Amino acid sequence: MSAARVHGQVRIVGAGLLGASIGLALRDRGLDVVLADTSRANLSLAVDYGAGRPAMPDDQPDLVIVAVPPDVVAQTVSAELVGNPVALVIDVASVKAGILAELVATGADTARYLGTHPMSGRERGGPISARADLFLGRPWVITPTAQNTDEQYRMVEDLAIDLGSTPVRMTVDEHDRGVALVSHLPQLVSSLLAARLRDAADSAVGLAGQGLRDTTRIAGSNPELWVQILSANAEPVARLLREYRDDLDAVIDALDAPAASGAPRRIAETLAAGNQGIARIPGKHGRDDRFTALVVKVDDRPGQLARLLTEIGEEGVNLEDFRLEHSPGAQVGFAEINVLPDAVHHLAAALQTRGWTLAEGER
Amino acid sequence: MSAARVHGQVRIVGAGLLGASIGLALRDRGLDVVLADTSRANLSLAVDYGAGRPAMPDDQPDLVIVAVPPDVVAQTVSAELVGNPVALVIDVASVKAGILAELVATGADTARYLGTHPMSGRERGGPISARADLFLGRPWVITPTAQNTDEQYRMVEDLAIDLGSTPVRMTVDEHDRGVALVSHLPQLVSSLLAARLRDAADSAVGLAGQGLRDTTRIAGSNPELWVQILSANAEPVARLLREYRDDLDAVIDALDAPAASGAPRRIAETLAAGNQGIARIPGKHGRDDRFTALVVKVDDRPGQLARLLTEIGEEGVNLEDFRLEHSPGAQVGFAEINVLPDAVHHLAAALQTRGWTLAEGER
Repeated sequence: MSAARVHGQVRIVGAGLLGASIGLALRDRGLDVVLADTSRANLSLAVDYGAGRPAMPDDQPDLVIVAVPPDVVAQTVSAELVGNPVALVIDVASVKAGILAELVATGADTARYLGTHPMSGRERGGPISARADLFLGRPWVITPTAQNTDEQYRMVEDLAIDLGSTPVRMTVDEHDRGVALVSHLPQLVSSLLAARLRDAADSAVGLAGQGLRDTTRIAGSNPELWVQILSANAEPVARLLREYRDDLDAVIDALDAPAASGAPRRIAETLAAGNQGIARIPGKHGRDDRFTALVVKVDDRPGQLARLLTEIGEEGVNLEDFRLEHSPGAQVGFAEINVLPDAVHHLAAALQTRGWTLAEGER
Repeated sequence: MSAARVHGQVRIVGAGLLGASIGLALRDRGLDVVLADTSRANLSLAVDYGAGRPAMPDDQPDLVIVAVPPDVVAQTVSAELVGNPVALVIDVASVKAGILAELVATGADTARYLGTHPMSGRERGGPISARADLFLGRPWVITPTAQNTDEQYRMVEDLAIDLGSTPVRMTVDEHDRGVALVSHLPQLVSSLLAARLRDAADSAVGLAGQGLRDTTRIAGSNPELWVQILSANAEPVARLLREYRDDLDAVIDALDAPAASGAPRRIAETLAAGNQGIARIPGKHGRDDRFTALVVKVDDRPGQLARLLTEIGEEGVNLEDFRLEHSPGAQVGFAEINVLPDAVHHLAAALQTRGWTLAEGER
């Protein structure tokens, strides 16, 4: 493990998933990490995990990281600014403008505060353990204001790099609008869709396929946490929901008179706009034009999938993405293998020679 | 391959994905399959693939399967009823009520027509090849009316079983309401969400995570096909969209005044209703209470995933579901492994002993 870019003593307030994970990672890099939590039980657990040591009266942190629930971030940041008069105080909450406004309104020393947001996939929820690699490969948004110095920005950038994240500089408003779009809107759209299933006929939900499962997966998120997140970013989320509703109304109008002039075109335009929208999502996931999918039938018993992947490795082909889909009710699954286009013909032929049943393209 | 339950000669009209796939599967079972298509090129291709033989003047099919695009199903069924005066004529279109109504209105012999819908995941789209196992393990909805005989129903049930499907008996209206809920509503919800990305800032879409990717995956579907499907099921879909919009309006109202009395509760209830909704989806997928997830870090190079799955097999543990998630921008991925709860502690310990880095629960 190379030496940390961050120097000095780091104090973490809130020893939950994020706080304890940051502590573990910084301790791995040899830093002196001081932990605080209003819950003695949480604190003991985090100390036992190796996320840091309990605070002592003469601690003098250079950096304070506030990692408490969204609704108490601003008051905690205020208290830390007062209690640590020379430290830079940052938070890791998923909405930024409201916290800054509350700090300004209460006369906090905002020149020593910097808002940040590690996009650590925490929204997928569930009681999971803290881990040092939680931030690995994820964006860490840093939202400096005109009051912040370059030195302060670099300190947080160093922190993000130490934790394996990619620092992303944005304004407070850019960030809040961004997460409203890529995180908060999808959450509500998915929850509202899943809510329609609650009182549906058994016969109807029995027809559910992969499309419904994917679209509703994040509807399993924690309601208590999400009320805080959505309430804190209410205005940008409400604005997107209104735009969404305008498009929805246009589709409802078209479906009310599907044979009317212009109705099919309006529906087609909505669907085409969706095609164009997903084309803008970067990365390896989803319907990525850079890769070609092979679908291979896999029996649902131990060793089959391992054999398939071993044989793909033997053919010298690297998997770009991979997904296993079970046919409902059947002891058979389909492995969707995404590889570079120039590897697909060789791999398809090789797998068929080895006895696998396959079809090119997505199912 | 065991003998077919279906007897006699089968005529398939429309040699596209569904028609050719049915033909391949029935030919595998030794049946005489006759193919027809208005496109000579499609027909030749399907015959070359082995999906059947071209129609001849003295053919006398016992069963006619109409597998043409949604907007020409009714007229094709009518023509086949006239042209084959003793055969049972079925279709495989994804919406049923409109076709039946059109047949009744045009005076067709509806006592020899039976509507069906194989839920073959065709909505995931893309130009994929026909395959005999397309229907394997999927529900095949059969929608008999009071005019149909038990013998006719059994003939279609036998067809579904021959193709490896699970026959599901529903009324026409039950079916159309069911697919409106589990297929057509998710499609529109996902397309409308993805449409919001089209003109979004690069900085915003750069923050996209797995939640957005999953929620928008089906937004890549073919607009032309979906206009036909949605227009054909307009009334049930519009009704669900209105219910969806009512819930959406309640959320918008709550977000317009997030501190108002009752607003947080209204948002929380929407999210909780989503939790309850996804709990109703059957099967192995998604957040399935029957399985426990282990998350294992996997380096992004050939052989790593195969080694992991081989070692899981060596531990005697069966994978119930599996998913690989790449961290954006990093040469590292996370394999989410779903296993039975009583296997998880053994497997977690064994994998750690073998040197894998893991965290229990979903990321």
